[in-house]
Amino acid sequence: MNSFKLHPQLAKDCYHLGDFSLSCLLLSKDANYPWYILVPKRSDISEVFQLSQDEQLQLNRESAELSQALSTGFNADKMNTAALGNMVPQLHLHHIVRYQEDTAWPNPVWGFTAAQAYQPEELRTRVLKTHALLKLLAFKPNHIDSL
Amino acid sequence: MNSFKLHPQLAKDCYHLGDFSLSCLLLSKDANYPWYILVPKRSDISEVFQLSQDEQLQLNRESAELSQALSTGFNADKMNTAALGNMVPQLHLHHIVRYQEDTAWPNPVWGFTAAQAYQPEELRTRVLKTHALLKLLAFKPNHIDSL
Repeated sequence: MNSFKLHPQLAKDCYHLGDFSLSCLLLSKDANYPWYILVPKRSDISEVFQLSQDEQLQLNRESAELSQALSTGFNADKMNTAALGNMVPQLHLHHIVRYQEDTAWPNPVWGFTAAQAYQPEELRTRVLKTHALLKLLAFKPNHIDSL
Repeated sequence: MNSFKLHPQLAKDCYHLGDFSLSCLLLSKDANYPWYILVPKRSDISEVFQLSQDEQLQLNRESAELSQALSTGFNADKMNTAALGNMVPQLHLHHIVRYQEDTAWPNPVWGFTAAQAYQPEELRTRVLKTHALLKLLAFKPNHIDSL
């Protein structure tokens, strides 16, 4: 049985933009970077290797497709992807669009600077752009008014 | 044609422990953590999605097998995996064994504290243990005297 429930810290820190077949897609509320998080909808998993072989393949597919769409759509200088989980044990994969002129470059983003909230119009633009970028993928968007 | 050459910064900062079929396995010279790096032996690649589908599958297999072997063998509290590449553009995947009592916990390791060199005997023990952990995998170890 799979009784997946998003970790409360991720639910608090992110907007839930929609779902791939395995993972839900979150947008970090930190507007300093276009910062996305994939969370496989499986309970009690904290490491990629704990997923089944099929789930690992699907996660890697979702991660690669998301990275490529974000890299192209946001004209990234570099994508940063990471599964850390020292604070929130539920497996989650960061996908962060990085620019040479962003606030933390070339450092990793974690703990570098205080989070900056999205302005409502900025959030709306970011979400609509993301949904457009993922339009050709197997992704089911949440309605923007539900965020 | 594939004219792969390890980036000089990675060559300087790491020991080359051996090779999987796609990636070479490096050990960071920072002894603060058991810190390993996979580098796919393909030239001019900086993002996972730039690899072919087959190469992506192989990289994910090598990464999952390595993570599982390290997690078990070092009794990790958490594995941290990441592809950042803001400083060294050549695609490389960090695999870091984390403990709740390590120097940076629960922060990510990058930039947290000065690197600490291995003592010769400590390095020898670490390398022999790593080779033993990978013995059942498709991994070709370099002789310890060549490091």
